Amino acid sequence: MTDLHARSHVIDALQCSDFNREILLEAQAGGVTAISAASVLWENFRGGMDYVIMWKEKLRENADIAMPIRTVDDIHRAKAQGKVGIIFGWQNTSPVEERLAYFEIFKDLGVNIMQLTYNTQTVFGSGYLEENDSGLSGFGREAVDEMGRCGILIDLSHVGVRTSLDTIEHSDKPVAITHCLPRALRDVPRNKPDEVFKACAEKGGIIGTSLFAPGLAAGNDATVADVIDAMEYTLDLVGEDHVAIGTDFNHNRPRPGPWLLWANRDKGTGRTLTEFGSAKISKPEGIRRNDEFPNLTAEMQRRGWSDARITKILGGNWLRLFGQVWG
Amino acid sequence: MTDLHARSHVIDALQCSDFNREILLEAQAGGVTAISAASVLWENFRGGMDYVIMWKEKLRENADIAMPIRTVDDIHRAKAQGKVGIIFGWQNTSPVEERLAYFEIFKDLGVNIMQLTYNTQTVFGSGYLEENDSGLSGFGREAVDEMGRCGILIDLSHVGVRTSLDTIEHSDKPVAITHCLPRALRDVPRNKPDEVFKACAEKGGIIGTSLFAPGLAAGNDATVADVIDAMEYTLDLVGEDHVAIGTDFNHNRPRPGPWLLWANRDKGTGRTLTEFGSAKISKPEGIRRNDEFPNLTAEMQRRGWSDARITKILGGNWLRLFGQVWG
Repeated sequence: MTDLHARSHVIDALQCSDFNREILLEAQAGGVTAISAASVLWENFRGGMDYVIMWKEKLRENADIAMPIRTVDDIHRAKAQGKVGIIFGWQNTSPVEERLAYFEIFKDLGVNIMQLTYNTQTVFGSGYLEENDSGLSGFGREAVDEMGRCGILIDLSHVGVRTSLDTIEHSDKPVAITHCLPRALRDVPRNKPDEVFKACAEKGGIIGTSLFAPGLAAGNDATVADVIDAMEYTLDLVGEDHVAIGTDFNHNRPRPGPWLLWANRDKGTGRTLTEFGSAKISKPEGIRRNDEFPNLTAEMQRRGWSDARITKILGGNWLRLFGQVWG
Repeated sequence: MTDLHARSHVIDALQCSDFNREILLEAQAGGVTAISAASVLWENFRGGMDYVIMWKEKLRENADIAMPIRTVDDIHRAKAQGKVGIIFGWQNTSPVEERLAYFEIFKDLGVNIMQLTYNTQTVFGSGYLEENDSGLSGFGREAVDEMGRCGILIDLSHVGVRTSLDTIEHSDKPVAITHCLPRALRDVPRNKPDEVFKACAEKGGIIGTSLFAPGLAAGNDATVADVIDAMEYTLDLVGEDHVAIGTDFNHNRPRPGPWLLWANRDKGTGRTLTEFGSAKISKPEGIRRNDEFPNLTAEMQRRGWSDARITKILGGNWLRLFGQVWG
């Protein structure tokens, strides 16, 4: 691990790992400052509460190496103490059910990031796998206003193109695309067109480069270099203040296994949406576990990126955006 | 009350009245055989259960004058015994939340009719008040299949035009528009264009003429004659096998009052959608209460309709469709 990596705030804006002590120790070894733990996909209100309770327990049991992140100051504290900060970030608003006031309830409980929709249509808008995306609904506009008021960062990674553009336009606050790759490098539905990345950045938002191999040009043969290539494409498109990292790591989730199969069914129990639940999908060689984060920094340094740029990408940009939105 | 009216099965496919003994007695006096009690609008799973429990209590307390309707045979029994049959029919699928298996749970508990969406966008499709209607979603297609399999009649009255057309096309079984007026006679969003009525009828479905005064050409000045005019327009369009009655009576709901204000907010607690919750809206003169049903029959007879046609419109058509769908 280089000095630069050790000095930097390293923030991963999306993992859906089933965290245990081993994973937290790996993250600590990899110099990771904070991770958004985004396992919520289709849960209802009670399921959202179960997520909060689960994390209270895990953080109590691992208080020597991990801590909850509610504010940007907490991230600085985690860095100073050498602990892994856990951000409560969800991949869906489903626990809010149809009650806007639940956004503030969950914010009070520490949920700081929510994806507006996950893959398919909800009361708020459409996901990227829906055949027709009619954009942000009337109730969706109310939701965006309420999330802004409460200080919940909106994530658009799995949201449909039209709903994403509507949300960016409607939101008073900048939004995030926590884990996504450019469609320009590989034309698959899960990647986003330049238009969405540009609109997000123009409003002050950030695109987290994902490590999802099927979205990289090299597919499952990808290495760290391919990830940095995707980052460079996005950097050229939107500038160094608007690019960061969201790994999409899902450690401790057997493949195929019940969690991934549930994740890939609409609302968890409907039809199967993609082949991702059962197919062999790896992360790029050299960045497959949390203790390999320094390999990303090393590749950036090898390419001659400035220290200033590297610290922004590793976590400085997320720090800025969290500070603007979380309140 | 004429002999014809007294002999006929008189079926009202939609009321959202807050039923009490007085209302049931009025219906009995009006020769009403069965009413779909459709007060469910925004309820969640537990709210749907509360509806079932409420009706179990009301029907127990009024067992001398009312009875539950689960099958077409039950309607014949209600007619023979001179009781008012209560059909469990909902104006939304919201109690199903995001679990398709809940359709069968509620069917087992007696829910025989469900509107696919109420006014705005859901996981299944869009309501007529949504700015953009992208049609039936992928999960919506699954829902239509499941409702068909379970024997739940789909209602499209408050559903958006595109979602309505998609549903009619996708459904294996005929569907209903339980309470609606023709947009051709009054161009307001709540009324439906001829295209939807025709598509519904071509698949064997039925259009229930509503008594909602703001949808009639004469508005709040309307009388029984205006209702029969709307019926005649629809009859000319789709034929006498595809027209029936859905009053939209909402007795015992103070206006303005908490229930109607809740009804007119998106999902019950979001923004107010229409002025209907507070405005003075009456039903047409001569058909404002359940004991005035014979006035509809009298006007049909005055216009020289055949007995066969009148009995179809009063209830025979609903009997046929219920028999086809409920199983």
